[in-house]
Amino acid sequence: MSSIQRLDSADPGFRSDLRRLLAYDASQDESIERATADILEHVRTEGDTALLNYTRRFDRLEAESVAALEIDRSEWLAALDALPREQRAALEAAAERIRRYHEHQVAQSWSYTEADGTVLGQKITPLDRVGLYVPGGKAAYPSSVLMNAIPAKVAGVPEVVMVTPTPGGVRNPIVLAAAAIGGVDRAWAIGGAQAVGALAYGTQTVAPVDKIVGPGNAYVAAAKRRVFGTVGIDMIAGPSEILVICDGSTPADWAAIDLFSQAEHDEMAQAILLCPDAAYIEAVQQAIDRLLPQQPRADILRVSLANRGALIKVRSLEEACDIANEIAPEHLEISTAEPEHWAERIRHAGAIFLGPYTSESLGDYCAGPNHVLPTARTARFSSPLGVYDFQKRSSLIKVSQAGAQSLGRIASVLAHGEGLAAHAAAAEYRLESSDTQA
Amino acid sequence: MSSIQRLDSADPGFRSDLRRLLAYDASQDESIERATADILEHVRTEGDTALLNYTRRFDRLEAESVAALEIDRSEWLAALDALPREQRAALEAAAERIRRYHEHQVAQSWSYTEADGTVLGQKITPLDRVGLYVPGGKAAYPSSVLMNAIPAKVAGVPEVVMVTPTPGGVRNPIVLAAAAIGGVDRAWAIGGAQAVGALAYGTQTVAPVDKIVGPGNAYVAAAKRRVFGTVGIDMIAGPSEILVICDGSTPADWAAIDLFSQAEHDEMAQAILLCPDAAYIEAVQQAIDRLLPQQPRADILRVSLANRGALIKVRSLEEACDIANEIAPEHLEISTAEPEHWAERIRHAGAIFLGPYTSESLGDYCAGPNHVLPTARTARFSSPLGVYDFQKRSSLIKVSQAGAQSLGRIASVLAHGEGLAAHAAAAEYRLESSDTQA
Repeated sequence: MSSIQRLDSADPGFRSDLRRLLAYDASQDESIERATADILEHVRTEGDTALLNYTRRFDRLEAESVAALEIDRSEWLAALDALPREQRAALEAAAERIRRYHEHQVAQSWSYTEADGTVLGQKITPLDRVGLYVPGGKAAYPSSVLMNAIPAKVAGVPEVVMVTPTPGGVRNPIVLAAAAIGGVDRAWAIGGAQAVGALAYGTQTVAPVDKIVGPGNAYVAAAKRRVFGTVGIDMIAGPSEILVICDGSTPADWAAIDLFSQAEHDEMAQAILLCPDAAYIEAVQQAIDRLLPQQPRADILRVSLANRGALIKVRSLEEACDIANEIAPEHLEISTAEPEHWAERIRHAGAIFLGPYTSESLGDYCAGPNHVLPTARTARFSSPLGVYDFQKRSSLIKVSQAGAQSLGRIASVLAHGEGLAAHAAAAEYRLESSDTQA
Repeated sequence: MSSIQRLDSADPGFRSDLRRLLAYDASQDESIERATADILEHVRTEGDTALLNYTRRFDRLEAESVAALEIDRSEWLAALDALPREQRAALEAAAERIRRYHEHQVAQSWSYTEADGTVLGQKITPLDRVGLYVPGGKAAYPSSVLMNAIPAKVAGVPEVVMVTPTPGGVRNPIVLAAAAIGGVDRAWAIGGAQAVGALAYGTQTVAPVDKIVGPGNAYVAAAKRRVFGTVGIDMIAGPSEILVICDGSTPADWAAIDLFSQAEHDEMAQAILLCPDAAYIEAVQQAIDRLLPQQPRADILRVSLANRGALIKVRSLEEACDIANEIAPEHLEISTAEPEHWAERIRHAGAIFLGPYTSESLGDYCAGPNHVLPTARTARFSSPLGVYDFQKRSSLIKVSQAGAQSLGRIASVLAHGEGLAAHAAAAEYRLESSDTQA
């Protein structure tokens, strides 16, 4: 029998059990922090030389120059052409749907004019250049290339630069094909903290970017945290999570496999079911036990379900929604009748999957919305990756001569109240009665 | 004669001079980092007790309980009633204009339905609870209370909680009045890293928030950086900056006083003028020399103008715009004829002030846009504080039975390509041909 925790919200110890279940240690490893700081400092001061040294050392890749580490566009196009027809069609269909969804997120500049002629507004501008980190090895997910590159291109970012480590010089053709489909502009075979440093500070060969997005290992995460401020970064992701709310009407196998589809990511991934129906929970438990042994990633599933998974009996679907708001899950499936009704009660979730046909995996790959979502309760205050992460705003203010009279008097009073005499004077100089006016 | 650097973009050393002028050391003080980590850890584990101890130690304020540190609403209302009529009217007028501008930023949920019945969308939700840090002492700016609280309330945040240190128990009545006008919901007389910790983790008495905004000293900034992830934070502000582009038509006194209005903030504040007209630059220099001695904050002005200020002769207004984009200033005044024409060339600035009547100080207090703006070149990738900082998004996905057929096939191919078998199976279970379907 597969082990997954069984909890009941009516138990007196439920709150503390839930807290324990959700707890996750995000503390940073001091040795990784030190190593990362050192790598970044070398890249910042030595540029290309340091980048070549670290690439030799960590990726066992010897290159004459950083220029030789650029992955030529012809190579991506060749990778795209060599892709099995079905895989290429799937990637292109996913890209098209992702593009269409994200086009709804494009913000437009706006302004309004007041009675005295004063104009106020907000100007929207895309970022100039964005860096996209793509991990090497097993965690090189082409879907991730699409999910990060497409919103940037929809935002109008002129240059999206991909970096990806190629240990031993081995390049991942599906990732390169995804880069071509996703609209990436340039790509470099560099990775690790050294690639993050090159993107943040620039080197003689690699131009600095304005924001770095994309997943990576602990060194990459530490490096992104450190260069934040010099460049923008996306959220640092914690373990992936799914919360499934069922009313008992969804086939139990579907619920079980949806829990698996999160739990298979890694041993820290979290999969939780909330349901008011005890018999249904039992059926899901049996489905888990029956289906788990056939799963190719059964070893990971066993660990993540045992340590981080739970089937929770709740009093009602109302209570399930309240618990969901506390958990603020990355992925929330509402697999019930009238899922929209319950979704109205949800305030905090990265993505909400409605109804039994909406498996999370459809959203992960091709429904259209982004799969880069806030983890570890950060959906309380943050959003899926989107076009808005690649556009920024500038306030626009044009005060008319008449406006300067009324606003000037207000500003003068407030500035004097804060002891900022030059602020007050700057407003007063624009007053018509002012004798300091030139 | 007042000392301010004079540069010329035609000089061969200009690029490196400019780089030196803009350089600013944002590195963190290790002793502050350690002290802050220690304070946060005590507040996290000991709650109220630690909060009371630190308040006693750092603010010389003895309180029986944390409850006794709450500043009662009756006290704010009394502060508001006691405010001089002119000051109250100015604060209320500013608040009304700030509210009206920010209402344009409210995002709305949206969704669309595809031909097969699949629904995709984005749900907008305000944050539940926001903490607003307001410094004590001289840097307690009531305008800052309005600029931080109003966007949160416009976003629909139910509870905005203000914390402000009251050294020796002295409360600032203008700050309390601004809290009343700005719509703050609760206020506590606590400050420093301990207040940030209380807001982030919660204590027995102080409820945890979802995001912390507002300026503070080095300890507050360090604490905000450390609790980021547990809660959201706004940007950590660097020194304030103004860049003024003149064509020579603005009265020289106005340009000089606008430079002062930034330079008076503190000794690290930066004020730079770009102009193609050498005679005008000379006139601004003379205005600086003439006006500076009368300024109440002349001592600060002398230091910030000498170390961080510059009058820069450029070849053209086009070049001025290009340099402005490199600097990505917090505040940009375009004090020229046809300022809109030049604003079109600007890609990176926190706020753009158009035309000679738009002194930055009008925007600081009452024009309507926010005065919390990206500093230190971060306008390349970030935005003014706004309603969007207090709303977040959740993706909505409802795949129809028909949609699950087409999307399921795509997801299955991509999931197998990434070696994620349970992801593939979750999609495949929803296919009508699937024999695993219940």
